[in-house]
Amino acid sequence: MKVVTRIQEYRKLRPAMAEPLGFVPTMGYLHEGHMELVRRARAENKTVVVSIFVNPTQFGPKEDFAAYPRDPERDLAMLKKERTDIVFMPGAEEMYPKKFNTWVEVEKVTERLEGAFRPGHFRGVATVVLKLFNIVQPTRAYFGQKDAQQLLVIKKMVSDLNLDLEVVPVPTVREPDGLAMSSRNSRLDANERQAALVLWQALSLARELWQEGERSAERLRQEMTLLIDAEPLARVDYISVAAPDTLEELELIDDSALVSMAVWIGKVRLIDNIMLGG
Amino acid sequence: MKVVTRIQEYRKLRPAMAEPLGFVPTMGYLHEGHMELVRRARAENKTVVVSIFVNPTQFGPKEDFAAYPRDPERDLAMLKKERTDIVFMPGAEEMYPKKFNTWVEVEKVTERLEGAFRPGHFRGVATVVLKLFNIVQPTRAYFGQKDAQQLLVIKKMVSDLNLDLEVVPVPTVREPDGLAMSSRNSRLDANERQAALVLWQALSLARELWQEGERSAERLRQEMTLLIDAEPLARVDYISVAAPDTLEELELIDDSALVSMAVWIGKVRLIDNIMLGG
Repeated sequence: MKVVTRIQEYRKLRPAMAEPLGFVPTMGYLHEGHMELVRRARAENKTVVVSIFVNPTQFGPKEDFAAYPRDPERDLAMLKKERTDIVFMPGAEEMYPKKFNTWVEVEKVTERLEGAFRPGHFRGVATVVLKLFNIVQPTRAYFGQKDAQQLLVIKKMVSDLNLDLEVVPVPTVREPDGLAMSSRNSRLDANERQAALVLWQALSLARELWQEGERSAERLRQEMTLLIDAEPLARVDYISVAAPDTLEELELIDDSALVSMAVWIGKVRLIDNIMLGG
Repeated sequence: MKVVTRIQEYRKLRPAMAEPLGFVPTMGYLHEGHMELVRRARAENKTVVVSIFVNPTQFGPKEDFAAYPRDPERDLAMLKKERTDIVFMPGAEEMYPKKFNTWVEVEKVTERLEGAFRPGHFRGVATVVLKLFNIVQPTRAYFGQKDAQQLLVIKKMVSDLNLDLEVVPVPTVREPDGLAMSSRNSRLDANERQAALVLWQALSLARELWQEGERSAERLRQEMTLLIDAEPLARVDYISVAAPDTLEELELIDDSALVSMAVWIGKVRLIDNIMLGG
């Protein structure tokens, strides 16, 4: 496994890499969710490249960029174990030199949910992912379904900008009790960790109601809200039952729905989602 | 020479094309300025790809998209003569399918000159050029210095987004009397064609003054303005003596300056520029 920190160094290595090339972009502090992406990439490609870069431009001024957890040594050990070929780990000044001034804006689908609560977040995500694609030059790129809206934004960018690569969605990996894997989970104390279960409980409730034949999106939102509001450590940013392609809130669930939420547990903001039907 | 109208068809052909690949993006209605780009591309590459696409998203609502001259048959004959390998000529719906929603914004350098007079113009330019780069996958891309600010915007985009290609600037080609070649020249009547010489006369005057030792940017702007205002058919949008990298207006010309202007001749808007020093 080779660790590369410079774009120019990666460029020199790229022509000798065997095709197809599978790419997993991460912000590090890896967990089983990431490792699932890496294993998929390993199974389906001759070369596996993982990037570790905590991207400053996708954090708002009041967000947790500085507090975002980091542990590169542990990350590298985990990646080596899964037979990663290259880890691309650039510094912030390598990705954003002085006078950096170019941004990618995906409109519409970024205006709702995460985009509404985190202005500029998806601009930062789309820009850094496009830069990483241009540097890494992958055949396939792997993204977790836990970040459902991010996945949609990346797919839209790839399609609209005619990028010559395949975006592969990978199902969310959960703890045994249902909590979706997230680097932010490490910042929960024991009480908060317990309280964080309300996200999965609410999603499971929505699925049960839907399986029993409930088709009113508003009813699902109400029941999930009641459940989460009963947890004193939880505070809801949004609870959404939306069309999976446009993210517009539904009235009736026709064929399928993306049920998603962002919930603060203490000072940690968690997101999760499930797909109904489709 | 092969004419390709579909992105998918081009993608299938791309792997068999010999490297390096030189690319000349155009809006058609080709003239000697374009042919100079094609000849440079032909001399320096094994494969030459030229695109012809009148890009709707770089024209403002009150601009001349509909009136922009078109003559694909003549264009193809000219390109064949210069031994172009592939002409990529997509329809608008191929480049901008319904629900297209992704845009590239280069900030700062787009705020002045053309960007100030044509809001959204460079967003359209950067977006379509990035799309064309992603489709065509060139080693080198050729742009005329006549569109000096566009060249700067493309270079900045390529650098900021880590595109793996070289942008090659090519000097402006002029008519014997000095008028810069432009597809829009075809829309000038005989009187206007004569009046259009004021652009080159003003630029030449600026160069003379500079060669005589004048270093006041304001003096150059004043003298050029006087000269152009004396032509009844001409109306100035801007006359600029700016730093070549930032396009900020200069007070004193230190090392070098980009002298540029946009001037309406009747209903046709022309631009031109020269570099002093550097």
